[in-house]
Amino acid sequence: MVVVMEEGATSAQVERVVAHLEQMGFAVHRSLGAKRMVLGVVGECPRADPDIVQLFDGVQEVVQVSEPYKLASRAFRPQGTIVTLDDVRIGGDEVIVMAGPCSAESEEQVHASAAAVRRAGAKVLRGGAFKPRSSPYSFQGLGEEGLRMLRDAAGAQNMKLVSEVMDTSQIDTLARYADILQVGARNMQNFSLLRELGKIRKPVLLKRGIAATIEEWLLSAEYLLGGGNMDVILCERGIRTFETYTRNTLDICAIPIVKKLSHLPIFVDPSHGTGRRDKVAPMARAAVAAGADGLIIEVHVDPDRALSDGAQSLFPSQFDRLMAELRTIAPAIGRSICVEPVARRGWGRE
Amino acid sequence: MVVVMEEGATSAQVERVVAHLEQMGFAVHRSLGAKRMVLGVVGECPRADPDIVQLFDGVQEVVQVSEPYKLASRAFRPQGTIVTLDDVRIGGDEVIVMAGPCSAESEEQVHASAAAVRRAGAKVLRGGAFKPRSSPYSFQGLGEEGLRMLRDAAGAQNMKLVSEVMDTSQIDTLARYADILQVGARNMQNFSLLRELGKIRKPVLLKRGIAATIEEWLLSAEYLLGGGNMDVILCERGIRTFETYTRNTLDICAIPIVKKLSHLPIFVDPSHGTGRRDKVAPMARAAVAAGADGLIIEVHVDPDRALSDGAQSLFPSQFDRLMAELRTIAPAIGRSICVEPVARRGWGRE
Amino acid sequence: MVVVMEEGATSAQVERVVAHLEQMGFAVHRSLGAKRMVLGVVGECPRADPDIVQLFDGVQEVVQVSEPYKLASRAFRPQGTIVTLDDVRIGGDEVIVMAGPCSAESEEQVHASAAAVRRAGAKVLRGGAFKPRSSPYSFQGLGEEGLRMLRDAAGAQNMKLVSEVMDTSQIDTLARYADILQVGARNMQNFSLLRELGKIRKPVLLKRGIAATIEEWLLSAEYLLGGGNMDVILCERGIRTFETYTRNTLDICAIPIVKKLSHLPIFVDPSHGTGRRDKVAPMARAAVAAGADGLIIEVHVDPDRALSDGAQSLFPSQFDRLMAELRTIAPAIGRSICVEPVARRGWGRE
Amino acid sequence: MVVVMEEGATSAQVERVVAHLEQMGFAVHRSLGAKRMVLGVVGECPRADPDIVQLFDGVQEVVQVSEPYKLASRAFRPQGTIVTLDDVRIGGDEVIVMAGPCSAESEEQVHASAAAVRRAGAKVLRGGAFKPRSSPYSFQGLGEEGLRMLRDAAGAQNMKLVSEVMDTSQIDTLARYADILQVGARNMQNFSLLRELGKIRKPVLLKRGIAATIEEWLLSAEYLLGGGNMDVILCERGIRTFETYTRNTLDICAIPIVKKLSHLPIFVDPSHGTGRRDKVAPMARAAVAAGADGLIIEVHVDPDRALSDGAQSLFPSQFDRLMAELRTIAPAIGRSICVEPVARRGWGRE
Repeated sequence: MVVVMEEGATSAQVERVVAHLEQMGFAVHRSLGAKRMVLGVVGECPRADPDIVQLFDGVQEVVQVSEPYKLASRAFRPQGTIVTLDDVRIGGDEVIVMAGPCSAESEEQVHASAAAVRRAGAKVLRGGAFKPRSSPYSFQGLGEEGLRMLRDAAGAQNMKLVSEVMDTSQIDTLARYADILQVGARNMQNFSLLRELGKIRKPVLLKRGIAATIEEWLLSAEYLLGGGNMDVILCERGIRTFETYTRNTLDICAIPIVKKLSHLPIFVDPSHGTGRRDKVAPMARAAVAAGADGLIIEVHVDPDRALSDGAQSLFPSQFDRLMAELRTIAPAIGRSICVEPVARRGWGRE
Repeated sequence: MVVVMEEGATSAQVERVVAHLEQMGFAVHRSLGAKRMVLGVVGECPRADPDIVQLFDGVQEVVQVSEPYKLASRAFRPQGTIVTLDDVRIGGDEVIVMAGPCSAESEEQVHASAAAVRRAGAKVLRGGAFKPRSSPYSFQGLGEEGLRMLRDAAGAQNMKLVSEVMDTSQIDTLARYADILQVGARNMQNFSLLRELGKIRKPVLLKRGIAATIEEWLLSAEYLLGGGNMDVILCERGIRTFETYTRNTLDICAIPIVKKLSHLPIFVDPSHGTGRRDKVAPMARAAVAAGADGLIIEVHVDPDRALSDGAQSLFPSQFDRLMAELRTIAPAIGRSICVEPVARRGWGRE
Repeated sequence: MVVVMEEGATSAQVERVVAHLEQMGFAVHRSLGAKRMVLGVVGECPRADPDIVQLFDGVQEVVQVSEPYKLASRAFRPQGTIVTLDDVRIGGDEVIVMAGPCSAESEEQVHASAAAVRRAGAKVLRGGAFKPRSSPYSFQGLGEEGLRMLRDAAGAQNMKLVSEVMDTSQIDTLARYADILQVGARNMQNFSLLRELGKIRKPVLLKRGIAATIEEWLLSAEYLLGGGNMDVILCERGIRTFETYTRNTLDICAIPIVKKLSHLPIFVDPSHGTGRRDKVAPMARAAVAAGADGLIIEVHVDPDRALSDGAQSLFPSQFDRLMAELRTIAPAIGRSICVEPVARRGWGRE
Repeated sequence: MVVVMEEGATSAQVERVVAHLEQMGFAVHRSLGAKRMVLGVVGECPRADPDIVQLFDGVQEVVQVSEPYKLASRAFRPQGTIVTLDDVRIGGDEVIVMAGPCSAESEEQVHASAAAVRRAGAKVLRGGAFKPRSSPYSFQGLGEEGLRMLRDAAGAQNMKLVSEVMDTSQIDTLARYADILQVGARNMQNFSLLRELGKIRKPVLLKRGIAATIEEWLLSAEYLLGGGNMDVILCERGIRTFETYTRNTLDICAIPIVKKLSHLPIFVDPSHGTGRRDKVAPMARAAVAAGADGLIIEVHVDPDRALSDGAQSLFPSQFDRLMAELRTIAPAIGRSICVEPVARRGWGRE
């Protein structure tokens, strides 16, 4: 911490600040400039509150000089984290695509969607069984029955499965069916949930809250990492701004920022990030071009009849075209993306 | 819902939209203007997604014509809700002040704070035992032991107690000690928690999320009301904007807006809403002048040593002065505020 | 400036930064902490760009330790500025109210509006003749003819006149008719206009841009003050946020913030700040309670027929009631507000 | 316009609204649904203010059903606008890159920068001579002398020149030297300036204001188009949000949105849009992947000594690498980008 005193600060004021800091357990170095005193404050006192120092008479500014997160920092693991699920390596050279319906609705909808996205090159099936909805009157998901459908479809397509957990009470159920547990944007600061997920040994996809700074997002990741779960995947999905044409403003620049600050893989969700089907492909291309490690995209075999988020779900044919475009873009930055249609490699079964 | 077709929309396009809407269960009235068709869509189909209609060819705009919340709407209870806890009537003519330390830290800190705020006119003691913190390295609260201290102090001062619940697993504990359960800003869309709190019969103070629109906030209240818990108190505590001088931008205008849209009492938290001690009193005065039903304010007998949020806690003497100012302001809009210092009425014991 | 080096920064990296700073003309003090080097950078080099220092290898953070504005800073004039126009003292104990129609539309509309607001206690007439409008198809104002009407009405009511200047080419005309020249929110960073207004000797009311930080706002005031025009009045009128219920979010907390940072009087415009008539009075009360030096309010004798901004204009009877409420609130913070209806003191003529 | 009445609206209330609308010159169609009346309002009354209708008793909501801009709308010119400057076609299949220093500083800096960006494939030279700066103490540009340097350098490299105009008084000077006149973000709603620029016959590059919605941006374009200047190029350069890691949040999604709503070419400025050199290339790639018609990028031969914006300027070698990456990405969406290094085609001279 650096404490900058005001120009006219008295030495009594300086000494009161120093005394307070030393009492908290810090060491303080005084540095007198031409016009003002600057205090270098050294030590680790997690409970100290810099906002209080700010309020002492004579203090002009208090500056934090280290990031408040440690395990999530790139300094902790400079080479970058790769989350490995059998042959799916998240955070490596290959851009990984997770795709599927917003919610599981029926056996056949789930299977048809999984087959379609698998054929186009997706390696992870996405799909919700417990749905957080702003309104209590909206469809809330099929629950465990939906999870079972998703697991079956993922198995049939040789895909991994990611699905959202909303509450500590759902963790066990989710962990039985899914390979990756997703924490939604609204739960990014549900610290009880994060603490419990830090104890399990399944990867967690942590979405950014719509009003969360990148620093707060990495602090939430720190809750998971601190619990011992090092397989954390970050996912940008749009922040709330004054622009209302789209539901959110997808912060593409978060990709290179996170890449610099942290060793964790960073994904982008262009479906929730825009809320409009015709904006999904441009933003998916932008995300890969900016260096994203992967995408999570909603695809529905009949989006106009989807029970949730149909307006942002791609038709399978749109998803096919998008995957082809991404295969052209990825090499521009030294990445690949499931180079050959999967079916030809004999993974799919349809 | 009103669906406005584009100027050049073909009748085939119109009919496809009508067919879709009728299949969802709506009745549709066609209204042909000079240049375009407007469809009036009537009926209740909670699962219908207007965003999908937006994507049909030929559709220019889809307009929702009713608020998505019902029980929280002022139309549901035009006279306004009064939450009654013995002689404390929240939402009536009297402006109710809740005050106390951010967190319970020790027996004596809690008792001294309670006595100080009671003397100045506060009728409800506030204080946290389970603390949501952005960083896992910050003080996380004393847990149930803190609740016990708060309950004792409230009892000794003949005050009611409000305290925060972070998780469904804490509801029982909180309900044993507190009179009002607070849902923090970060949990405003923790729908699992809201659903459980809808089942209990204790008032809930629901803080607005830092990125929540007023509509989303009222929809979250709807989760509580829909579960049968009609004693909901809303609390504005600042929204996130580009301005960084204060931690948040306290949206004072939310007070008259909520008063118009809903029957629920509306409080303001100027402590979290500004994050800076010297801004608390001006914003508390502004809130009462704008028509708030109450305030929740952090007061600490020794703020500079507080384990959390000390920078925004008032000294007891500052709180006294503020209460005196509020007593001048409240009558301007036909409100009162604990007119006589409580001690003289024999409630306090010190 | 304080430059904080990274933990592992080499001494070669430190010396490159020092060399760069010294070449810019700064003196540099090295201060070695337990883990990292902190550089205290002293001197005045207005052309130096701290963002560049940020990019040197080994630099963790660069902190500006003085506000970038000087003449607008409270330190420059601790006692506060009072802008005096005959017997109207802006920034003193009395809260000054400026009121009138959004635009001058006709002789009788202007005179009737002026008489109405004068009777209720307003001392300055507001009214636009040149209107900035988002759409080229909206009413753009009556121009100089409108100014003449406003000047006549102000004279007849013994009021001062404030009106908006949009462009350097309009300054002479405005200065001939108005006592105070208003710079609108969209022009807050029109530096050509600010530079010219710094040269005249009429007070300027400088509105905050809808996306301007308080620091940027004070820097814009610095353009005026630096030109020698010390009669600057700041005016908060709402910032743009994600909340769309009102046109803008009126940042009431800007009042105490500006009061602390600057010596300039601070006004609030609750009409543009909310855009809705029924929200004007609550926000006007809030502004006075928070310590505003004055208000600028739209009042129209027939708002439903106004050519611009009718939706946010008060009826004269609403304005009367508001003024009465403000007279109760102002004393709570040691302020007054035109205590007796003006007519009784013989100022008005009808 | 569609006016939705409240559920319990009386017929007297309905008739008052109808009378008001008819008096404004509209035709009104009544449409009675199951629960409420919906009024279809037809006609063109640019001075009518829908916000006033909103305030009538019994009105629930007023919906505008046409965009307020006309000439900027894609419907006006469905095939898209191509701005042609000799062999430079802006808005066609080729992605056009404008590059150069933030400000002209010296003869040699300008020439060296122009040569460097030309070699890499830029076809338009960018550079400022009049600089809008938040602080009056920052470097304000070389004025006409800077323009002359830029013109010379552009000529020597066979490039077009774009430079910023800040004020109506500068238009003539700018038009003498530059091929494209740039309107900066802070002037996007300087309507006096826009009106004058509508009268000239040089292309205008109109940057988006940092708090401007896309609709407001297109309305500002409408001022230019309405004056008869059809050669308007839009440029996204970042909006202001709560995230402070970068100076602005570059709204990449504005690209496909503008493409759908308007026929005007859309550029992106990743330099001002991020403010940090290491984020420029990822965002430039993202912009092209999302469908931008061009880029405007700051490149400086010695960024660390630049008098303005050095922190966001690329080194020439970084720009070379970026252009190579863009050549891989553009074909993914059927675009090209100055396929061969220009020097080989004999355009450059060094």
